[in-house]
Amino acid sequence: MALPKHVTIKEVGPREGMQFEKGPIATADKIRLVDMLSECRFSKLEVTSFVSPKWVPQMADADEVAARFTRRPGTEYSCVFLNARGLERAAATGKFDIRGNLYGTVSELFSKKNTNRTIEETYADLEERIGVFKRLNLLVERVGVMAAFGCNYEGDIDPQRVLAMVGHLLEIAERNGAHISGIALADTMGWATPPRIRHLVGAVQDRWPDKPVSLHLHDTRALGLSNAFAAMELGVTEFDAAVGGLGGCPYGGFKGAAGNISSEDLVHMCHELGIETGVDLDMLIVAAQEAERIVGHPLPGKLIQGSSLDSYRRKLAA
Amino acid sequence: MALPKHVTIKEVGPREGMQFEKGPIATADKIRLVDMLSECRFSKLEVTSFVSPKWVPQMADADEVAARFTRRPGTEYSCVFLNARGLERAAATGKFDIRGNLYGTVSELFSKKNTNRTIEETYADLEERIGVFKRLNLLVERVGVMAAFGCNYEGDIDPQRVLAMVGHLLEIAERNGAHISGIALADTMGWATPPRIRHLVGAVQDRWPDKPVSLHLHDTRALGLSNAFAAMELGVTEFDAAVGGLGGCPYGGFKGAAGNISSEDLVHMCHELGIETGVDLDMLIVAAQEAERIVGHPLPGKLIQGSSLDSYRRKLAA
Repeated sequence: MALPKHVTIKEVGPREGMQFEKGPIATADKIRLVDMLSECRFSKLEVTSFVSPKWVPQMADADEVAARFTRRPGTEYSCVFLNARGLERAAATGKFDIRGNLYGTVSELFSKKNTNRTIEETYADLEERIGVFKRLNLLVERVGVMAAFGCNYEGDIDPQRVLAMVGHLLEIAERNGAHISGIALADTMGWATPPRIRHLVGAVQDRWPDKPVSLHLHDTRALGLSNAFAAMELGVTEFDAAVGGLGGCPYGGFKGAAGNISSEDLVHMCHELGIETGVDLDMLIVAAQEAERIVGHPLPGKLIQGSSLDSYRRKLAA
Repeated sequence: MALPKHVTIKEVGPREGMQFEKGPIATADKIRLVDMLSECRFSKLEVTSFVSPKWVPQMADADEVAARFTRRPGTEYSCVFLNARGLERAAATGKFDIRGNLYGTVSELFSKKNTNRTIEETYADLEERIGVFKRLNLLVERVGVMAAFGCNYEGDIDPQRVLAMVGHLLEIAERNGAHISGIALADTMGWATPPRIRHLVGAVQDRWPDKPVSLHLHDTRALGLSNAFAAMELGVTEFDAAVGGLGGCPYGGFKGAAGNISSEDLVHMCHELGIETGVDLDMLIVAAQEAERIVGHPLPGKLIQGSSLDSYRRKLAA
């Protein structure tokens, strides 16, 4: 299949990246990074996470970050919340374009570890969650499956289980009157390979051709961009990514939690493939360098050192 | 095209990786690393470089490394030399399976920078080089093109120029009675993308179907494994790689010189694709961790932290 003309990249570094950082990070630094990323013209930007500081201390300043970052017209700002209390906090800031997602984790063991809920309990929770969205007049527009390509606690995941979970989530949505327009698949622990992408994404596309697939890929075992490229050849046009590859803790020994694919490396790949992203790559590389200074350790993104090919072409043309 | 059943990986970390390391590295450490890599059962292993210590101080101990590493039956040991003096030093050690290669650099400017020779001067040198190989009764079996996918000094490289250079090198070989059995293409500065791999490798395969292509890929801009996968789908079965992604200097600000693709990440990708390499991945990850200790800074290979998927599968099966 021909590569798409345009790919949407949702920058999730300030949220997903920061949450794994162990050292203290100044609230002002977090806000500056979000503002820099806005300037890079991402069409989607995930700013923070409204979760209990007891579980994620790094997100204790979520309300302040939300209050003080600057919204750029043209960017859709999102945040993470796990329950009604979090959603209410997020909504109260008035800074987010809140859309509802219904997520499940296809690995029973990881579901328990990560959210302390079985899959069945998650399904029950989601019925309630839809109710909260309705009450707040918010659209529920996407369903998603985490650990869709494999799991450190369960191993390889049969694609049939993922298809069944997507079907179940869509059924919950429909039964509650929600119109779902997209399906998200997350390679939460880095088990995907290009053939696994082709197999599972292909199967989801075949079954639900009117609901575009978006991908959340981790680069745990160096296959993040290979997987993204394989997906683009299937026509996938939306990916999450984190500036600098934030969230990787590649040197912290936190096995299995390596970061998202790096936004600047993904943007660069897209541009080299002739795919538009709308993102200003030069500014993004500067933001990645700043992210590295903020967290105080090297980040895995390659362009932080490697520079873009266009920067060489411009130098040569000058 | 179906993926190959077997891929040969030539480990070049001790040579190409070490040469970019700025700090002093003990000769004993270099030897230990070579011996560990032998234990990993690479079928090809590049040990060191017989070049002037004036130009590459890190290789001043090449003779001692060569004298003291242990040859493992089943591994083909190679080394780099740039002139007759280097070749004689290498041959004198009696430790190498020396095969001749005829390499050119398709970028005129990089050829001058890297070897202080124009392309025309290189062609003249190669006629002489073949003579030296003949005198020493060594086979010349491969031609190769460096900077084949792009160049930091010249920008994008027209594939037609690469085809012309391969043709010219083959003509020099034939005229001198050498039977060339393979064509090497090097993405020396990380300009390749999967479509560029398909285009150039495909064109070389079409023109010389009896001379398998091997690839030397750098991961400068995070596309190394994506490029390797694209090449495997074209039937390419030989790749250079460096343990840990050595040679990257990813944190040294040495732009454009980022390392080879990481051997363990490449081996892992192959195994996950069902492609045999003959390499012991568990031992290789240990060797990569040791390489990191030896150079004293983080290396970019992902499995150093991420572990192999098989290690998770084994744990789960236990």
